[in-house]
Amino acid sequence: MNEFIVSHNELKERCIRKFMDAGVPEKDANIATDVLVHANLRGVDSHGTMRMEHYIKKLTAGGIHATPTIQVRETGPVTSVVDGDDGLGHIVAYRAMEEAIDLAKTKGVGMVGAVNSSHCGALSYFVEMAAENRLIGMVMCNTDSGVVPFGGRSSFFGTNPIAYGFPAKRNPPVILDMATSTVAFGKVMDYSQRGKQIPAEWAVDAEGRSTTDPDKVRYMNHFGGAKGFGMAFVVDVFSSILMGAAFGPHVKGMYGADYAQPRKLAQFFCAVNPSYFTETDRFLEQMDQLIDELHTAEPAEGFSRVLVPGEPEMMQKEKRLVEGIPLPEAVYRFLFD
Amino acid sequence: MNEFIVSHNELKERCIRKFMDAGVPEKDANIATDVLVHANLRGVDSHGTMRMEHYIKKLTAGGIHATPTIQVRETGPVTSVVDGDDGLGHIVAYRAMEEAIDLAKTKGVGMVGAVNSSHCGALSYFVEMAAENRLIGMVMCNTDSGVVPFGGRSSFFGTNPIAYGFPAKRNPPVILDMATSTVAFGKVMDYSQRGKQIPAEWAVDAEGRSTTDPDKVRYMNHFGGAKGFGMAFVVDVFSSILMGAAFGPHVKGMYGADYAQPRKLAQFFCAVNPSYFTETDRFLEQMDQLIDELHTAEPAEGFSRVLVPGEPEMMQKEKRLVEGIPLPEAVYRFLFD
Repeated sequence: MNEFIVSHNELKERCIRKFMDAGVPEKDANIATDVLVHANLRGVDSHGTMRMEHYIKKLTAGGIHATPTIQVRETGPVTSVVDGDDGLGHIVAYRAMEEAIDLAKTKGVGMVGAVNSSHCGALSYFVEMAAENRLIGMVMCNTDSGVVPFGGRSSFFGTNPIAYGFPAKRNPPVILDMATSTVAFGKVMDYSQRGKQIPAEWAVDAEGRSTTDPDKVRYMNHFGGAKGFGMAFVVDVFSSILMGAAFGPHVKGMYGADYAQPRKLAQFFCAVNPSYFTETDRFLEQMDQLIDELHTAEPAEGFSRVLVPGEPEMMQKEKRLVEGIPLPEAVYRFLFD
Repeated sequence: MNEFIVSHNELKERCIRKFMDAGVPEKDANIATDVLVHANLRGVDSHGTMRMEHYIKKLTAGGIHATPTIQVRETGPVTSVVDGDDGLGHIVAYRAMEEAIDLAKTKGVGMVGAVNSSHCGALSYFVEMAAENRLIGMVMCNTDSGVVPFGGRSSFFGTNPIAYGFPAKRNPPVILDMATSTVAFGKVMDYSQRGKQIPAEWAVDAEGRSTTDPDKVRYMNHFGGAKGFGMAFVVDVFSSILMGAAFGPHVKGMYGADYAQPRKLAQFFCAVNPSYFTETDRFLEQMDQLIDELHTAEPAEGFSRVLVPGEPEMMQKEKRLVEGIPLPEAVYRFLFD
């Protein structure tokens, strides 16, 4: 498969143009693009511009509204529900996180549910927004079914990611953004293409049995057995049932569905202001101390250093800002031809 | 090793007496005992009455205050910091969760940090308090170092548990209470006694290398590789750095330390009121639907049913309420002789 290297600025320009051609206002096109290219820069290409074709199809067919009327309903001193009016999930999530940040700044905590949303890209973007405001960010979102519950043989929950962002003073924020599945399905496809066996704990075949043959994979497993399944359960409740939205196997799929149908996804956003618990300066300095002490911890064989969550992605970002972002041919053709 | 079976009521009576003999007021002795026997009933004996000897030693030596002046400082509309005055952690945690519940009932969310606390027993108890009030509960607490960070060779974080409680309407609440280590160290000791090998991912030896020999285990691993390490990081920040308390390797150990020294632990408590996001009835009914659908999901080979988080412990509780609680001889002698 051919790859094309483009700079993040070229890539942004093309995505903004595509969004605007599909009727998205310039401001929203900029935000959605920033979320997508953020993922590409961090090496999380599965959540980057490879999804553009999907978004444009949905926008064109009406399953995503290009000019939604997003409404924020404050339901209590620190809680809100954001109705996304079936707009781009990136825009709905951005608005919801802004609201959570505003609440946390003035009241210590902000907890915001988004409804009538759609695929919002990488959660890391939104927890980073909180961390840039010297707040802790926490975001959860369920996804369509594809992962086997612990003790089960066919899929129930999705890859259900959860993300946290923590600010520091000298160090960049610590960003943990992880699926509650073992790995992304894309990694299985990658092993298949290379003719390699996958680790036995990654996935199951059509009979629900663990398999090391990537071509026999039917569903993924949750990471860490019953504990990862537990975390996926937590994500589904916070990000959908809490807002009265569809959960588990009832979540509408991203692909193969009617592009004119909105997915009606829900998402959960929270920001916490450390100054309501301790002095912000002390918090930020202790975060630095924690990061520094992990960095100087003695590494295991085969590791050069202990890294904090999100650090491999941050290193990838530094590289790609300079060297550019590799795009598969199909994605390149869609955006640049 | 001999085991002695006692009823939960006998066990409670003896613990209350022991606490009161050490100067703990009757009301507090009842609460702390209830937390401990709750763990024994659920089969989580590591967090039950086997810890009594430790608490009594600390109470006697002054490292835990028998009659603390616990102070609740409200810091914002939904946030408080509870200063436990080095009292029994169970009492401090109970007070902190009460405060979080009160805030969530009237304002949608309650977020409470406890400082100057001590070992508080099983977190499941406190998230269940929230669930019994038709609220979501979330509790985190760091523990003294003993687990190797991902990519490291010696211990940094502790077993850092995190717990969630979710209410339902027809079903009992779903209680997820999990360490972010692979398993408890007690399980390694158990394998050693039985002369069995442990799975390679559980733990490392003195050189930081994975080992299957339970007698060579020096430190535990986090569950699920980098992801479980990430969750342990989250727990340490929320439960200690957020309150300006000691983190990671700086947390005072439970054993082998000066019993006259308070441990100055911190803990994090949160309650969320679903009625601020959707209708409570709809929330509770969807929780039931989620639980029911998981129960009727097709089980994998070797499993009779898919269970929801905390269900094995709930089944153990039903059994032990009837059949009694097995105590190791040393624990029995300490409490009953």
